[in-house]
Amino acid sequence: MSRILCMRAPRRLLSQPILATAIRNARRYASSAPQFDWEDPLASKTLLTEDELAISAMAESYCQEELAPRVLQAYRDENYDPQILREMGELGLLGATIKGWGCAGVSTVAGGLITRAVERVDSGYRSGMSVQSSLVMGGIHEFGSEELKDRYLPDMAKGKLLGAFGLTEPNHGSDPGSMEMTAREHPQKKGYYLLSGSKTWITNSPISDVLLVWAKLKETGKIRGFVVDRRDSPAGTLETPAIKNKNGLRASITGMIHLQDCPVPQENMFLEVEGLRGPFSCLNNARYGIALGTMGALEDCIARARTYALERKQFKGNPLAKYQLVQKKLADATTDAAYGTLAAIQVGRLKDEGKATPEMISMIKRQNCDRALQGARTLQEIFGGNAVSDEYGIGRHVANLYVTQTYEGQSDIHSLILGRAITGIQAFV
Amino acid sequence: MSRILCMRAPRRLLSQPILATAIRNARRYASSAPQFDWEDPLASKTLLTEDELAISAMAESYCQEELAPRVLQAYRDENYDPQILREMGELGLLGATIKGWGCAGVSTVAGGLITRAVERVDSGYRSGMSVQSSLVMGGIHEFGSEELKDRYLPDMAKGKLLGAFGLTEPNHGSDPGSMEMTAREHPQKKGYYLLSGSKTWITNSPISDVLLVWAKLKETGKIRGFVVDRRDSPAGTLETPAIKNKNGLRASITGMIHLQDCPVPQENMFLEVEGLRGPFSCLNNARYGIALGTMGALEDCIARARTYALERKQFKGNPLAKYQLVQKKLADATTDAAYGTLAAIQVGRLKDEGKATPEMISMIKRQNCDRALQGARTLQEIFGGNAVSDEYGIGRHVANLYVTQTYEGQSDIHSLILGRAITGIQAFV
Amino acid sequence: MSRILCMRAPRRLLSQPILATAIRNARRYASSAPQFDWEDPLASKTLLTEDELAISAMAESYCQEELAPRVLQAYRDENYDPQILREMGELGLLGATIKGWGCAGVSTVAGGLITRAVERVDSGYRSGMSVQSSLVMGGIHEFGSEELKDRYLPDMAKGKLLGAFGLTEPNHGSDPGSMEMTAREHPQKKGYYLLSGSKTWITNSPISDVLLVWAKLKETGKIRGFVVDRRDSPAGTLETPAIKNKNGLRASITGMIHLQDCPVPQENMFLEVEGLRGPFSCLNNARYGIALGTMGALEDCIARARTYALERKQFKGNPLAKYQLVQKKLADATTDAAYGTLAAIQVGRLKDEGKATPEMISMIKRQNCDRALQGARTLQEIFGGNAVSDEYGIGRHVANLYVTQTYEGQSDIHSLILGRAITGIQAFV
Amino acid sequence: MSRILCMRAPRRLLSQPILATAIRNARRYASSAPQFDWEDPLASKTLLTEDELAISAMAESYCQEELAPRVLQAYRDENYDPQILREMGELGLLGATIKGWGCAGVSTVAGGLITRAVERVDSGYRSGMSVQSSLVMGGIHEFGSEELKDRYLPDMAKGKLLGAFGLTEPNHGSDPGSMEMTAREHPQKKGYYLLSGSKTWITNSPISDVLLVWAKLKETGKIRGFVVDRRDSPAGTLETPAIKNKNGLRASITGMIHLQDCPVPQENMFLEVEGLRGPFSCLNNARYGIALGTMGALEDCIARARTYALERKQFKGNPLAKYQLVQKKLADATTDAAYGTLAAIQVGRLKDEGKATPEMISMIKRQNCDRALQGARTLQEIFGGNAVSDEYGIGRHVANLYVTQTYEGQSDIHSLILGRAITGIQAFV
Repeated sequence: MSRILCMRAPRRLLSQPILATAIRNARRYASSAPQFDWEDPLASKTLLTEDELAISAMAESYCQEELAPRVLQAYRDENYDPQILREMGELGLLGATIKGWGCAGVSTVAGGLITRAVERVDSGYRSGMSVQSSLVMGGIHEFGSEELKDRYLPDMAKGKLLGAFGLTEPNHGSDPGSMEMTAREHPQKKGYYLLSGSKTWITNSPISDVLLVWAKLKETGKIRGFVVDRRDSPAGTLETPAIKNKNGLRASITGMIHLQDCPVPQENMFLEVEGLRGPFSCLNNARYGIALGTMGALEDCIARARTYALERKQFKGNPLAKYQLVQKKLADATTDAAYGTLAAIQVGRLKDEGKATPEMISMIKRQNCDRALQGARTLQEIFGGNAVSDEYGIGRHVANLYVTQTYEGQSDIHSLILGRAITGIQAFV
Repeated sequence: MSRILCMRAPRRLLSQPILATAIRNARRYASSAPQFDWEDPLASKTLLTEDELAISAMAESYCQEELAPRVLQAYRDENYDPQILREMGELGLLGATIKGWGCAGVSTVAGGLITRAVERVDSGYRSGMSVQSSLVMGGIHEFGSEELKDRYLPDMAKGKLLGAFGLTEPNHGSDPGSMEMTAREHPQKKGYYLLSGSKTWITNSPISDVLLVWAKLKETGKIRGFVVDRRDSPAGTLETPAIKNKNGLRASITGMIHLQDCPVPQENMFLEVEGLRGPFSCLNNARYGIALGTMGALEDCIARARTYALERKQFKGNPLAKYQLVQKKLADATTDAAYGTLAAIQVGRLKDEGKATPEMISMIKRQNCDRALQGARTLQEIFGGNAVSDEYGIGRHVANLYVTQTYEGQSDIHSLILGRAITGIQAFV
Repeated sequence: MSRILCMRAPRRLLSQPILATAIRNARRYASSAPQFDWEDPLASKTLLTEDELAISAMAESYCQEELAPRVLQAYRDENYDPQILREMGELGLLGATIKGWGCAGVSTVAGGLITRAVERVDSGYRSGMSVQSSLVMGGIHEFGSEELKDRYLPDMAKGKLLGAFGLTEPNHGSDPGSMEMTAREHPQKKGYYLLSGSKTWITNSPISDVLLVWAKLKETGKIRGFVVDRRDSPAGTLETPAIKNKNGLRASITGMIHLQDCPVPQENMFLEVEGLRGPFSCLNNARYGIALGTMGALEDCIARARTYALERKQFKGNPLAKYQLVQKKLADATTDAAYGTLAAIQVGRLKDEGKATPEMISMIKRQNCDRALQGARTLQEIFGGNAVSDEYGIGRHVANLYVTQTYEGQSDIHSLILGRAITGIQAFV
Repeated sequence: MSRILCMRAPRRLLSQPILATAIRNARRYASSAPQFDWEDPLASKTLLTEDELAISAMAESYCQEELAPRVLQAYRDENYDPQILREMGELGLLGATIKGWGCAGVSTVAGGLITRAVERVDSGYRSGMSVQSSLVMGGIHEFGSEELKDRYLPDMAKGKLLGAFGLTEPNHGSDPGSMEMTAREHPQKKGYYLLSGSKTWITNSPISDVLLVWAKLKETGKIRGFVVDRRDSPAGTLETPAIKNKNGLRASITGMIHLQDCPVPQENMFLEVEGLRGPFSCLNNARYGIALGTMGALEDCIARARTYALERKQFKGNPLAKYQLVQKKLADATTDAAYGTLAAIQVGRLKDEGKATPEMISMIKRQNCDRALQGARTLQEIFGGNAVSDEYGIGRHVANLYVTQTYEGQSDIHSLILGRAITGIQAFV
């Protein structure tokens, strides 16, 4: 664990009793007699390092104390508080797997444990963080020049600069290779490109300072990545209107990116990468975070449904938890959470060892999103009509998890990616 | 078909070209060469009478022209316009299966076709109508004295008086037999009862004039039905606060009913019925409407998904409709809609012949709600990330249909009702 | 109902008490008070004519008395007794929907009720009958010359001549249009064709006398139908080896058809039909029988599982039927049987009115086979380990129903047929 | 890895080229560049030790070379060759996790890899081995006196003595606590008990020498374990008739155990254990083997379906593998196999560290059996009608996996075990 994360976390959190308990619980696992823990049925904690346990405990503590109390209202109002990213930055949670530039440099699994903690509260909050950490910081770190890294990463790590990632276009979702946004050499200003086109469903775009945008270079027809800095964009060349009235992820902010001959200096173009490899590599990192993140949302659904089932009584005063049909729903969801967590930890380890492939990420992204959504829906049934009240939180998770199933590769697209890897034949048609 | 419906419909609607087309299409079925119609795959129209076809066409026309344009905003604002019930009343759509008192006196199937037309737009609009028609007017018609019928039915049929149905209590959802609301004899005012207690999740309660409330008579401990007239209730004895921030059915209004020693005259108590038979009989009628109604919502999802799949192009310009995984989703949902419609028509016919049993209603209510919800969710996947925009309408149906699966008997409860009927053994525990 | 069936049935069956009861039960439905009947939950019997009820009762009686006692041993030994078709012929059950040539001339629904009765015992027995009735007799009746009809239909109706239907080839299952079997003009013998090629998975082929075989005419490349008469085929030109060691349908006999320059007179070729329309029309009739037939198998599974659940006691002597998880399985399967039956009756009526389309048949064939298989598998779980014993019969139905899902259009193929009908785009690739 | 396994394996196997390849492949994983391997999608091999890889390779080699060629005929004939257990004994595969008494003393995971190798060929073969290894040898090792261990374990490890495990009774499957078999003190012969009662569905019983039988001690009413030695049982006191005509596991032998005042010396009773803890502990070990074992069967189904899909061509010569609906089936099953394998490895590690609980075993036994069965059934659809031929092997796996889902705790029972662990409330009723 990086010094930064270590040093900062204690200052903020160690005096708080909840964290102390969390760490104590985490450590207890080394010595205790075997006992089934419905919150971690297959003892995935035994696979984590001390550092990872501590990071997870800190992140959970922050999320439960600071994020959980805000989410109900934020979701109702469809409002995202950019202050959240600054708070996360202060705790070292942003770009946490990057080494250097003020980032924590933790393991891939630790990074996933952070997303799980955030998504336990809300998938929208996790989305906001994933864009900042995996898509934009990750992209700049992987493909940007040293100068770009020095210019953007430190402030992004602190949450002082907010990022957005522009890949999806109105007419091109699952098939980004057909994108229409273009970059052409500036006819007057040497060393500059002019970017034009539209992106949509862009998390954080309305509040972003730094936009990593993918466009086709006119001269080559190849896709290239550009870092568009809002501060340097002349009026009228960059618009980022918000998309409102969403059915899910209402606690995150989403918008479009309209570029109209927006000038971008040549040094803001990624040099080392061309084609879809660039955006796909960024997505790969984000997808990992989603795979472990959605397990947090599912676990929260389990905890809420379990509590409800124990407290709600029907028919002669029996708690719902006594009914076989209810127990089966809990057993199914708990199993999926346990399995999905183990799979994500395994892929995280492989990633750090350079042994992970994109198909592995497709597999865990697809399966964990699918099962989280399915599990949340099944658990929702336990609440009966009461699930309609947003105060139970379950409906929010259900609506959010639908979105996680569709973004960064809709479930069926990942099925076909896997199918291609298994058979050697592509069937995207 | 009643004279009222016949006479009124033409005045309002016959000049409109859409209705003419609808009726022409409906009639065409008698003579045309066989051709697969994805909107009615098993030709359920051949099972309908001329009157039923005309009623259905009129209701569809009204709903598409008058309701559809309002629903997006209503759902966003969580707002229900009581004017809608007045419009429906003018068209003869309220309490339509009742004979007399200004009601249309149509067949059970025709009543279901009306709910289907309304729910094709929105399950919340259908809920508002079902409460008025099936639960309150139906209840008064079945169990009320002639005097009660004369006093309430004509104005309710016109939508001038709005009804609410108070059965579910905060602690008693699936098990209404344990209700806590009481009615006791008025200590001073002879011939009056005092009602006290709370009901929750009551559609229309905040805007209702006439509340059919079920309470336990103190002296017998038996459940009895009371018609509570808001105009006659002294200040402070009846409160109907709205429940806001719902996850679904946001285009209908829902609230609580708080009664605090609310005086109700003896003649407003249903005399002929005691115990759960009363409310269950009302629910039975409403459930029938839900069974056919949800098929409308599912059909709308199919139509929306089909259009989207034909218009949206990915990968070499192919429409999504060309993908096998998309076609299977459409085939599954279409089959469920076709089967569910036939089953509901059959039970409607049996009902009019006095051959329907409550278990039959349980079966079609459960199955049609389950399949509509499942189908809507599967079709939603076709929209990918775009489903998150409320303008596609699909997310609204998904959220609504979850609620229809839980109210008037949550799906699992109906499973156990059927299980009991099949095995002779009750397993509610 | 035809005179033949009417006259014959009584002679054989009316003295038998079981039939009397069956008819009495069938008639009772007209007058009795409404009561839920788990064997016919949505009262599909009310949709049947007196004739149809009587035919159904007779067929059920024969099947339960004569077929049921033989099936366990036949399935074990993988043996089919051709005598069964002769018995069915005597009762007028073969080619029953054909008018004339000694056939009963009953309604499509009545024909389906016969298949349901047979498949309630075993899908293999029903397969043997379907081939005779729908595929071969139906094909000759629809496309054959008057001479062919006169020559074959009367003896086939009596079960004296047995038929087989040769369409599927070793390399061409779902895609018969690519068939390799050829017919070429006899180089010496004028008015004769020589047929060569192989067919596989042909029900009844080893015991068949009359083989309706589809081959491509060399001169046109178009598919044509030929009636191959084993009695007229020189030694060595026609072989029909049995395929043994099947996983399902073991009580039916299956084989190949090898033709090696087998001479067939020109008049045995169907004149009126060319291309796939011929075999597809035959399949259409057979698929209808499967759609209603599989409901019989599913209903038998329900009855067996219900009995087992009531008799088997675990945990404090409670019957399994008391467990919620068991009741839900029963409720699900019962609902599917009820819905599937109604859909099949509706399509049968449309068929007789000339209003049915092949896509309707695809829909009910697909859905009813899928749900029957799914239901049988779920009900099998109620038997626990005991299902492994073949004496409970449930494992046999499960294995059989897998086959019904795959033949005459595998389920996914029908999904794509429906998808094409819904979207107008074919996705067979 | 034990010396015995090490020393013996090479002698037998190292000269064989297949093993060399297997070991080379296994080792390759340490160094190769990351590449998706559909046979091990989440690189579970990276979690195995060198020893475990070698044991797995040896077991796979034996099973593919020696067992695979026999299984088709064995399944057809419903015949189990006891020689197989002797071969396994020679290779050190029996009781492999036991340390001492000539057993290999390998890790729990290694033991599971052996069951996986065997079940890749056939679940029946794995069942025969599980009974010998986990249930009988495991039981004697855990609860027997040193004398009993010395007397039985060495010869059982060599496959010279065959074991059977008698717990399930005709009327008591999921609820063994209600067993009826009794043990009473011998009225004449001191130091002896007389056992009476019947057990059923006992794998290996007809060929067994050593029967571990659970019975209620008359004097206490408590369940105790007895080692019944067929050689010491007087004629007429022990009968073990085979159960024939099974729907699944036909390559294993199953029977009953009838005891009629069968005398058993006191020292053959387990002293240390009383009640259900004894048999449940044995089952726990066996269930672990099933959890990893069924993954082998599923993986074999994947491999067979993939090959078939690549070789079978339909519609314009496209292989089935090109169809989206086929690719999705492969992707789903592959994911389940990968996830299930990781979960089983994790629980194996916990078991060796003393951290596993019975609920963890319930979770992986339930989930892996459920998913293996579901996956096999879905993959079977790829074969269409050809799956009916037993030569494709897929139907055999489907039939076998149904049985694995029901034995050693039917799936629903494990759901309720998990439900109890999650909620603290039992719902067995």
